[in-house]
Amino acid sequence: MRILVVNPNTTESMTALIEECARTAAGPGVLVDAVSPSDGPAAVESHVDEVVAAPGVVEAVRVGERAGYDGFVIACFGDPGLDAAREVATGPVVGIAEAGMRTATYLGRRFSVVTTLRRMVGPTRELVRRYGLADQCAGVHACEIPVLGLADPASTEVLAGACLEALAADGSEVMVLGCAGMAGHVPVLTERLGVPVVDGVAAATATVAALVRLSLRESTVVDEYAAPPARSVGA
Amino acid sequence: MRILVVNPNTTESMTALIEECARTAAGPGVLVDAVSPSDGPAAVESHVDEVVAAPGVVEAVRVGERAGYDGFVIACFGDPGLDAAREVATGPVVGIAEAGMRTATYLGRRFSVVTTLRRMVGPTRELVRRYGLADQCAGVHACEIPVLGLADPASTEVLAGACLEALAADGSEVMVLGCAGMAGHVPVLTERLGVPVVDGVAAATATVAALVRLSLRESTVVDEYAAPPARSVGA
Amino acid sequence: MRILVVNPNTTESMTALIEECARTAAGPGVLVDAVSPSDGPAAVESHVDEVVAAPGVVEAVRVGERAGYDGFVIACFGDPGLDAAREVATGPVVGIAEAGMRTATYLGRRFSVVTTLRRMVGPTRELVRRYGLADQCAGVHACEIPVLGLADPASTEVLAGACLEALAADGSEVMVLGCAGMAGHVPVLTERLGVPVVDGVAAATATVAALVRLSLRESTVVDEYAAPPARSVGA
Amino acid sequence: MRILVVNPNTTESMTALIEECARTAAGPGVLVDAVSPSDGPAAVESHVDEVVAAPGVVEAVRVGERAGYDGFVIACFGDPGLDAAREVATGPVVGIAEAGMRTATYLGRRFSVVTTLRRMVGPTRELVRRYGLADQCAGVHACEIPVLGLADPASTEVLAGACLEALAADGSEVMVLGCAGMAGHVPVLTERLGVPVVDGVAAATATVAALVRLSLRESTVVDEYAAPPARSVGA
Amino acid sequence: MRILVVNPNTTESMTALIEECARTAAGPGVLVDAVSPSDGPAAVESHVDEVVAAPGVVEAVRVGERAGYDGFVIACFGDPGLDAAREVATGPVVGIAEAGMRTATYLGRRFSVVTTLRRMVGPTRELVRRYGLADQCAGVHACEIPVLGLADPASTEVLAGACLEALAADGSEVMVLGCAGMAGHVPVLTERLGVPVVDGVAAATATVAALVRLSLRESTVVDEYAAPPARSVGA
Amino acid sequence: MRILVVNPNTTESMTALIEECARTAAGPGVLVDAVSPSDGPAAVESHVDEVVAAPGVVEAVRVGERAGYDGFVIACFGDPGLDAAREVATGPVVGIAEAGMRTATYLGRRFSVVTTLRRMVGPTRELVRRYGLADQCAGVHACEIPVLGLADPASTEVLAGACLEALAADGSEVMVLGCAGMAGHVPVLTERLGVPVVDGVAAATATVAALVRLSLRESTVVDEYAAPPARSVGA
Repeated sequence: MRILVVNPNTTESMTALIEECARTAAGPGVLVDAVSPSDGPAAVESHVDEVVAAPGVVEAVRVGERAGYDGFVIACFGDPGLDAAREVATGPVVGIAEAGMRTATYLGRRFSVVTTLRRMVGPTRELVRRYGLADQCAGVHACEIPVLGLADPASTEVLAGACLEALAADGSEVMVLGCAGMAGHVPVLTERLGVPVVDGVAAATATVAALVRLSLRESTVVDEYAAPPARSVGA
Repeated sequence: MRILVVNPNTTESMTALIEECARTAAGPGVLVDAVSPSDGPAAVESHVDEVVAAPGVVEAVRVGERAGYDGFVIACFGDPGLDAAREVATGPVVGIAEAGMRTATYLGRRFSVVTTLRRMVGPTRELVRRYGLADQCAGVHACEIPVLGLADPASTEVLAGACLEALAADGSEVMVLGCAGMAGHVPVLTERLGVPVVDGVAAATATVAALVRLSLRESTVVDEYAAPPARSVGA
Repeated sequence: MRILVVNPNTTESMTALIEECARTAAGPGVLVDAVSPSDGPAAVESHVDEVVAAPGVVEAVRVGERAGYDGFVIACFGDPGLDAAREVATGPVVGIAEAGMRTATYLGRRFSVVTTLRRMVGPTRELVRRYGLADQCAGVHACEIPVLGLADPASTEVLAGACLEALAADGSEVMVLGCAGMAGHVPVLTERLGVPVVDGVAAATATVAALVRLSLRESTVVDEYAAPPARSVGA
Repeated sequence: MRILVVNPNTTESMTALIEECARTAAGPGVLVDAVSPSDGPAAVESHVDEVVAAPGVVEAVRVGERAGYDGFVIACFGDPGLDAAREVATGPVVGIAEAGMRTATYLGRRFSVVTTLRRMVGPTRELVRRYGLADQCAGVHACEIPVLGLADPASTEVLAGACLEALAADGSEVMVLGCAGMAGHVPVLTERLGVPVVDGVAAATATVAALVRLSLRESTVVDEYAAPPARSVGA
Repeated sequence: MRILVVNPNTTESMTALIEECARTAAGPGVLVDAVSPSDGPAAVESHVDEVVAAPGVVEAVRVGERAGYDGFVIACFGDPGLDAAREVATGPVVGIAEAGMRTATYLGRRFSVVTTLRRMVGPTRELVRRYGLADQCAGVHACEIPVLGLADPASTEVLAGACLEALAADGSEVMVLGCAGMAGHVPVLTERLGVPVVDGVAAATATVAALVRLSLRESTVVDEYAAPPARSVGA
Repeated sequence: MRILVVNPNTTESMTALIEECARTAAGPGVLVDAVSPSDGPAAVESHVDEVVAAPGVVEAVRVGERAGYDGFVIACFGDPGLDAAREVATGPVVGIAEAGMRTATYLGRRFSVVTTLRRMVGPTRELVRRYGLADQCAGVHACEIPVLGLADPASTEVLAGACLEALAADGSEVMVLGCAGMAGHVPVLTERLGVPVVDGVAAATATVAALVRLSLRESTVVDEYAAPPARSVGA
């Protein structure tokens, strides 16, 4: 089984980190590769960034599809291009936001999300509603660390502080990390927070591996996730 | 007051139709121009089409912003690029799906939407949920006419039939047209259906005109609709 | 085009204020008149007040209908008599609560409402639910200024303070004014609050003008907003 | 214990029927009287009817309050004037719609409502949402018998037919009768339908009797149901 | 009329207290008996306790059914075994959580619940959602008094303090006591809190008495509450 | 890694089937054992069955916990004893209903569930609401095959027919099998239905394996899933 993890931004060091985390999560017998689009934003921190990043995600999945990957992960917490990627892939495609938050529902009655910048709180709340998790999500908070700042080891302290404040404010039981760039912080956060800490990259990779093993892929019965009309692809 | 209507697809004849409908709706003292992106899909009929179209929408709004337009309409029922366009515009930006459906709520307890192809039913239902209108929307249906097929006068009959079936199946009171390409059919449909028929292009244009007149624009207080970080715009 | 704005209370000075605000919002080519019922409460600050005021609203709309007005605004944030007025009018009827709150949804992800007295918080929350805006409304608050006290210029300071507290408590992005009597305070509040401030009187008037321009009126297909049985009118 | 049942319409024969049903439901040791307003509609079959009827309901409760009644029932399925009546009464006030539908929730997972005319379906759906019962209500249907036509014994057959169709269409388990005028049909309907049949008059009367026995009355802690300001009552 | 109140725990002194409260609530002409299962937990303070207690509840209802009781109350705020008890009883079965919370909806716009231990907050929130009361319930709180500690008269002070904190935090208007063991504290709490205080034991008993008087029992039309297959009962 | 699958009923042939399906789903490096309680119902087809089965489930998990299993599956679509099992296990516990339905959300916009008997439709709808999946679940249907009848190879035809009817009625895209006893029918159903078919046993086993690999277990921070008080366990 081969899984392709697509990092929607072009920062190669982050792609390497994501690849490492995804490989650990995939389990034995699963090959995992991570890629970035050749073109796109260095980080996804606005609606414009999402719009700019999404075509590259779809293209990366299309290339991966031709290369024979069995399933795909979109490794950005906005799940950019998720539905479109499902149209071009035959195997399952899972976003780290949907997988991170759904995985959290097995671990406690209510979870909190900590995202990067304040401007991402609204879009993240929107995802919570989109996935039908409004009753399970106790709150969305920002740590005010930009995406690329998360690579700095010193950011762990600030992130841990933001998570502890979020848990206290929300009275929640599970922490969902709201950015792929937080994946490397999981071990320390788990120790510091005293609650399960869900990294979406790991959750999505494990979910795709499970779906492939169970031979489950997106439904095309009402066309929505069927291949788009030929015109659409080219034009 | 000057309003720019952005047709997310590149079909110029459709842009002309949209411009005409929008001008009628804008009322006295409002100048309306319609544009298409130079690059993008000829029609938006899949998730991939939306991803491909959105960057052109954002770019068109950015150009319009520099040209001094006071407000913007996104004239495709998927509202592609709406949130991103709000980041780059200082005046209000309104999508035809949100405006069409919210306008319908003043006209009866429950509305139905008729979209183009079956594969767009799911995405349209998603918009209904996103805008918080699940209790007001009685159903979403497809007429199975592709976007560009709506330019054929013979399509009116098929569309009217689909609308009548939708109203009967849903027991609803208002019809919302789920594609900008349906704007030209409003007069005939109004006569045939016996219920109010809402065209999103007209609704959105009238809404933007009202917001500009009231000096209302998107809030930037929590940054979400503030201009994106400089990096985002360029990268 | 002629629009009639009905102030459900009998305080003439407030009717004059409302008329002025509505005229500004209506735009060119729209004639706006405001009236009060001859009989009713001096202000609407309780459920009893609403019950007492509603028959006068319906009567005013009926008189306006005969006089040939094209559309109607009900200028009290409880939207008293709204559904009944729709039965007796052929043109559109819009309440300032529904229009104020729906207009706010174009301007940010979540809005707050500031109403007059604490006892009106519950009824206002009820309206939020009725219009399906529970996900968009971050909170409802009272400024503890009675309706007629809002005519005192000194009330601006207290009102601004209540609005600032509400925005901070809710983390919201848009302010909706929960009383027609607050219309005159919009310019100062806009400057003080740093967020879009929506006055329902302006929003409803602009909405009615748009509906009339688009030839849209309430649906009568399932009878709900059709003229009531003759007995009902007279008895 | 003395309970006053207010029939919001002025049809005395219907008031007598309601009184009889309410007395049966009240149980031993409870005195029940029913009254009609002196002025108002002969039946409540439109929004205008509700607006016209509500002041008489409030006045009847105020008179009953002075006469020392311990609790009140509003015997019209639109619950007209309910909140206002709570302001003027010190004892509990219960509407037959809220009591009928809440009582049904003890008897099965989902109930259907059959109302009188088609134009009342929308308002009844609105009540379902207002009382938070959207998940429990499987459907609202009309039997197309006007309120006063329910006094005709021949109407039982039509009503039973409409109820059976509603149960079949909705796959529901409990029938809630959507008009006080249906109270006399309960025994026959129970036999014919094969499901529990809830009459709101009986349900509300039993509920008020229970609340009085438990010394429970509306909360006034946030003023909403406290006596309205003196001005409001008189003006 | 004879009602059987089943205390799901085996603490006889608590059964006696519950019986006394239920008798007061039942009203004239209603005989009330309370029983405990012979086997089960001494108190219900965890999910395991609920699982262990439920078979005894069902058995007690089955014995009561044979003994001719007309209706049943399950006197533990988790409503353990409620649906199963409905299968074995022919008369109505009501849980104190559903009755306590639904009764509260007649008394104010929003209620708070105070339960025993912190670990019961999550399960109580789940019940709120199950009964469709999420919009009416402003919050669930723990007083950190174990069930059997509520028999200590000194616990009243702690409980009152927790209730006052809950009302202040939630801005709510009605208090629902989240444990049958709190029934004896109602008079003092009512005096101290200044809001209606709803004891589920009283509310459920009054509700069952009303249902029996109205000849209403669970629907069996879709089998759900019909007697289970013979195998199920024995095996 | 060792996973214990608990079949809540005592039918050994069904336990063997479940074990086989679970082993296939678990993937390499995971040991899977399935057990039945020594005592309990032969099948779970009523609320009484669930109550009778749940203590055996909890006991089986407790025994498995002592034997060192890393995670647990509850293999009955009612998820009986799920929350209680989480209290006694330190590793993750997943029910087949929650896992089956959440897995379906990755595969299409809306799924249908086909359960065994008509009386299980209501409880299954309740689970849909409990897990927050009401917007994703298009319908719940019964095939009217009792649990143990599913072992008959001839049942495949009937089951396939019921699934096809459900998909057509709901317009849905994914089929979730509503009984562990349906696990063996997946290959044929997948071929016949033309949509993804989700077996909860496979989905839950894969989910537990993923959670164990990611070192995620239930949160105990608010005590809810912490070990119950010593009294509870023994009494």
